[in-house]
Amino acid sequence: FSLIFTNCPCSLPFSDIEISRSCIPKPIDQVAKEIGLLPDEIELYGQTKAKVHLSALKRLKNQPDGKYVVVTGITPTPLGEGKSTTTIGLVQALGAHLHQNVFACVRQPSQGPTFGIKGMNEISDMFCVLQFNLHLTGDIHAITAANNLVAAAVDTRIFHELTQSDQALYNRLVPSVNGVRKFSEIQIRRLQKLGISKTDPAALTKEEVNLFVRLDIDPATITWQRVLDTNDRFLRRITIGQSPTEKGFSRTAQFDITVSSEIMAVLALSDGLDDMKKRLGRMVVASSKRGEPVTTDDLGVTGALAVLMKDAVKPNLMQTLEGTPVFVHAGPFANIAHGNSSVLADKIALKLVGKEGFVVTEAGFGADIGMEKFFNIKCRYSDLRPNVVVLVATVRALKMHGGGPAVTAGIPLPKEYTEENLQLLAKGCSNLSKQIQNARLFGVPVVVAVNAFKTDTKAELALVVQLAKEAGAFDAVECTHWAEGGKGAVALAQAVQRASQTPSNFRFLYNVELPVIDKIRIIAQQIYGASDIELLPEAQEKVAVYTKQGFGNLPICMAKTHLSLSHDPEQKGAPTGFILPIRDIRASVGAGFLYPLVGTMSTMPGLPTRPSFYDIDLDTVSGEVNGLF
Amino acid sequence: FSLIFTNCPCSLPFSDIEISRSCIPKPIDQVAKEIGLLPDEIELYGQTKAKVHLSALKRLKNQPDGKYVVVTGITPTPLGEGKSTTTIGLVQALGAHLHQNVFACVRQPSQGPTFGIKGMNEISDMFCVLQFNLHLTGDIHAITAANNLVAAAVDTRIFHELTQSDQALYNRLVPSVNGVRKFSEIQIRRLQKLGISKTDPAALTKEEVNLFVRLDIDPATITWQRVLDTNDRFLRRITIGQSPTEKGFSRTAQFDITVSSEIMAVLALSDGLDDMKKRLGRMVVASSKRGEPVTTDDLGVTGALAVLMKDAVKPNLMQTLEGTPVFVHAGPFANIAHGNSSVLADKIALKLVGKEGFVVTEAGFGADIGMEKFFNIKCRYSDLRPNVVVLVATVRALKMHGGGPAVTAGIPLPKEYTEENLQLLAKGCSNLSKQIQNARLFGVPVVVAVNAFKTDTKAELALVVQLAKEAGAFDAVECTHWAEGGKGAVALAQAVQRASQTPSNFRFLYNVELPVIDKIRIIAQQIYGASDIELLPEAQEKVAVYTKQGFGNLPICMAKTHLSLSHDPEQKGAPTGFILPIRDIRASVGAGFLYPLVGTMSTMPGLPTRPSFYDIDLDTVSGEVNGLF
Repeated sequence: FSLIFTNCPCSLPFSDIEISRSCIPKPIDQVAKEIGLLPDEIELYGQTKAKVHLSALKRLKNQPDGKYVVVTGITPTPLGEGKSTTTIGLVQALGAHLHQNVFACVRQPSQGPTFGIKGMNEISDMFCVLQFNLHLTGDIHAITAANNLVAAAVDTRIFHELTQSDQALYNRLVPSVNGVRKFSEIQIRRLQKLGISKTDPAALTKEEVNLFVRLDIDPATITWQRVLDTNDRFLRRITIGQSPTEKGFSRTAQFDITVSSEIMAVLALSDGLDDMKKRLGRMVVASSKRGEPVTTDDLGVTGALAVLMKDAVKPNLMQTLEGTPVFVHAGPFANIAHGNSSVLADKIALKLVGKEGFVVTEAGFGADIGMEKFFNIKCRYSDLRPNVVVLVATVRALKMHGGGPAVTAGIPLPKEYTEENLQLLAKGCSNLSKQIQNARLFGVPVVVAVNAFKTDTKAELALVVQLAKEAGAFDAVECTHWAEGGKGAVALAQAVQRASQTPSNFRFLYNVELPVIDKIRIIAQQIYGASDIELLPEAQEKVAVYTKQGFGNLPICMAKTHLSLSHDPEQKGAPTGFILPIRDIRASVGAGFLYPLVGTMSTMPGLPTRPSFYDIDLDTVSGEVNGLF
Repeated sequence: FSLIFTNCPCSLPFSDIEISRSCIPKPIDQVAKEIGLLPDEIELYGQTKAKVHLSALKRLKNQPDGKYVVVTGITPTPLGEGKSTTTIGLVQALGAHLHQNVFACVRQPSQGPTFGIKGMNEISDMFCVLQFNLHLTGDIHAITAANNLVAAAVDTRIFHELTQSDQALYNRLVPSVNGVRKFSEIQIRRLQKLGISKTDPAALTKEEVNLFVRLDIDPATITWQRVLDTNDRFLRRITIGQSPTEKGFSRTAQFDITVSSEIMAVLALSDGLDDMKKRLGRMVVASSKRGEPVTTDDLGVTGALAVLMKDAVKPNLMQTLEGTPVFVHAGPFANIAHGNSSVLADKIALKLVGKEGFVVTEAGFGADIGMEKFFNIKCRYSDLRPNVVVLVATVRALKMHGGGPAVTAGIPLPKEYTEENLQLLAKGCSNLSKQIQNARLFGVPVVVAVNAFKTDTKAELALVVQLAKEAGAFDAVECTHWAEGGKGAVALAQAVQRASQTPSNFRFLYNVELPVIDKIRIIAQQIYGASDIELLPEAQEKVAVYTKQGFGNLPICMAKTHLSLSHDPEQKGAPTGFILPIRDIRASVGAGFLYPLVGTMSTMPGLPTRPSFYDIDLDTVSGEVNGLF
């Protein structure tokens, strides 16, 4: 289907803000047809977006997969180093310029931060080169709805258990309808879990009724939070249940941003409707007072969650400005979750591009976080094996790692970053070397993409290329897609093509059957450069709890700052010899990982004094949106 | 376009739960074509839903409007008396059976209650006869996002004002970008509102800077609440801002269900994109400490709200099981808002059906609430004039009004309701008579639709028909659409046709320029049968505040129970001589009404002990949803 690229007259740079307006996209059903989807495999959402049915994957199951490329980066400045635009530049170069079948798979940006600090939403960069609306096809809204249904079910269940006798609860949970009482399917599953094989509600003993009706949730153990896709800092800690109707059963709770919901991670890791439903049902929301995990299935809510998420599971097809197909699907947090777009989008794209084609997918944050999780979590669940790692680096970030002054959003860059300084740069390449080494730990060839800014000098760019190769990169290439669009990433695309011909000897970093502590230590030592880890008491306790509850064999999803290889954002370069402190450990059992907290993670951003919404406007005559990017 | 009706082979009853699955709908683009929409006037959302561009209204502006029919009801039991199904039955009869061009305009159901108590979501009945998914096209989710952006902006603004000097605020609100400081458009509007005509940020005096940077919101006056489309009773009263990052600035707040957001009312009353944006900008969120209203425009958020709502403003086209076109658009609360579907859907539909066609729109709750607001608020803003009122009555509800025992959801009906009882029925027709009289106050002919249940006897049905005619109804007709689909409403459709030929002498009940108290008194006395009203101190104070702030000339949207003509849900029939207490008054300035609170309104439902989600499931092989209705 390379037709769709050669058809396109334009090769647009990304630097022009007016672009996504001036370039008229092809109707998305035409894109779908060109890439080999059947008419009944897509659902249109307007002219520029379509959902792709999972039936496409079934139809193509005997097709060979294309080449699988993951884009990651060095440890970034707070401004981000251009992974998203490199992803798009690379697919445009592979497609429009080298005439390969190609697909980009990217994350859906969270809406909340769009109205916060301009330029601080890493993923939304992407959208200056895509046609979109803020709600996309509503996947994140579906997650909000599903997540908050669980939250309401948790608190209401506790309330009803505290205010009713066993018998009253039983009468309500298993009511007589036209004189007949029977268990619903989900209640029979709960009985089975309790080891009760009876199916006649009248046959349960008093003790069995007690076990059945009482989830007996210990409020102190609730890990399920409410979510909103809004930057609302006043919801970071709240007290709920203060209306007289709740009779004094108030407790401390919090709202997180929707993309941090476990349901987002479930969406991203599911490999089908059935798998998603199973994961949605085994999410753990709290422990009972007896210390057993209480799941969404225990709450009776699995089916409703699956219904709420049944459309969200279908990947969203869009296109770049140059007509290259893109899946925008799922966008889990990159710290408390794994920060990668969906398994399903990658799988469908790999079938669609065919054996010689390329799927370029992006992993959030730097290689120590997003890429490590891409390999150890996403690839473990998807069974997909990557062929090439593209590691994005900038002279700016490397100078920072070499000891340059702080880089802060909204404040002009100090002169170290706008004038040539080979010394700072050479020193900072320690971070690049370490991240190249991190990728090679997994047995995959690394191509370094040096994302060039206009203030970078020739000597600076050459130095990065040289040091990258010395550190073991398969190749290192200067890219100018920001200024030139796909054309500026042709050399990168050629390097990726060559790298994809070399054998990949992919291996996981650890065996999931190892004890929790060992798995954490392996990541800390081998990826971060720590000498050891230290578990604070809360973390130690959780290791015991989760191991006892049977979750010890889940992969590990480190919740660590992305601004340093260590736990301290101030430590730049490639620090060594530090002890990584593990403050606490949480479990996303439905998604399928444990997440150790290294320091404090903010899961609800705030709005600044002058939020970006001051510049956002709708022209009510033309319908155009202004000021969004 | 009557083709679409004669084409349809089926005339399906509503009583079969399997129906909306077995009947294969036409592709929605075919429906759109048949009703005269152009291809570029629709945006598909899958095969069964499409959004209709407002450009259609512009193209058709010189077309004459069709006949405008509003469906309302007597004072209902808590089970509802079938307004929604009568609406659909009527359009199917007019279309598929009498071959008229016809459109139904209905409200979008709230998602929250769908997972709560089965059968308690009045509007969702509708959807057993429509193809749909729970999220529809995401309009309610867009409202959640827009509403909560305002809420976050309010609290964050208060926080920033409390923690920063005038100069610090000014530097951040009007930052220097590349050495240049300038006001954004929305900031210039604020300056104009403050009477400052300067446009150079350097030219403001210290006093002017102070006025500009300080909205000076009085937290005690905040009327803007957060919303979720989830039945989450634990959010009815909460304390927010308890994280250390908020430095102790906590306050009591609450979440309401999304459909109660003023933005929903704005959506429903807007007559175009520009009108919606203006309404979104003039919503009042609080008063300043100086007693002035603080608006969304003062917060700088108008443009962002318009961007979030730009797709929601387009009506959603769907179809009934018999292929009749339906707009599902907006669903404001019927107590604290006006409870009617959108002005835009009605307007577009009236153009599409042509002069001889019919648009049937539904008003929430009984005629004393939904219909009164339909006339006095919706028709006032839309300038549309109704031709016929259809008043739905049931023998069951009339017996309750005659003194029958309580009717409760989930509990079998007492025998008074399943056996003939002409005495109770005749007595209860006082409610029917009063509601007929209420409709006639507006000068519009009334057709009574007696929604027949299988336990109703011939004598009972005949008695209702007789008494309805005696009370001044143009006609009264027995309907059996629940059992027979459109066929069961043919007699009703014929009566509506005849009624629409009679001259309608529409008049408003009150002049908006009357004092607030007079307007409330007119509604209470003429519609409810009260002898007078009584304003409690809080309400008296608000009359003074709103009159002073310039909102005294808005129409009135009574927030009263729908279970009685009076304020007391236990008072059935047609009570008279009571004093209607007004507890408080609130303002929806953007939507454009004041809403007096008669008693306490719950704006956040809860989940019962056994929520309906226990029965809801997704078949992951077929993709079918089970147990939703």
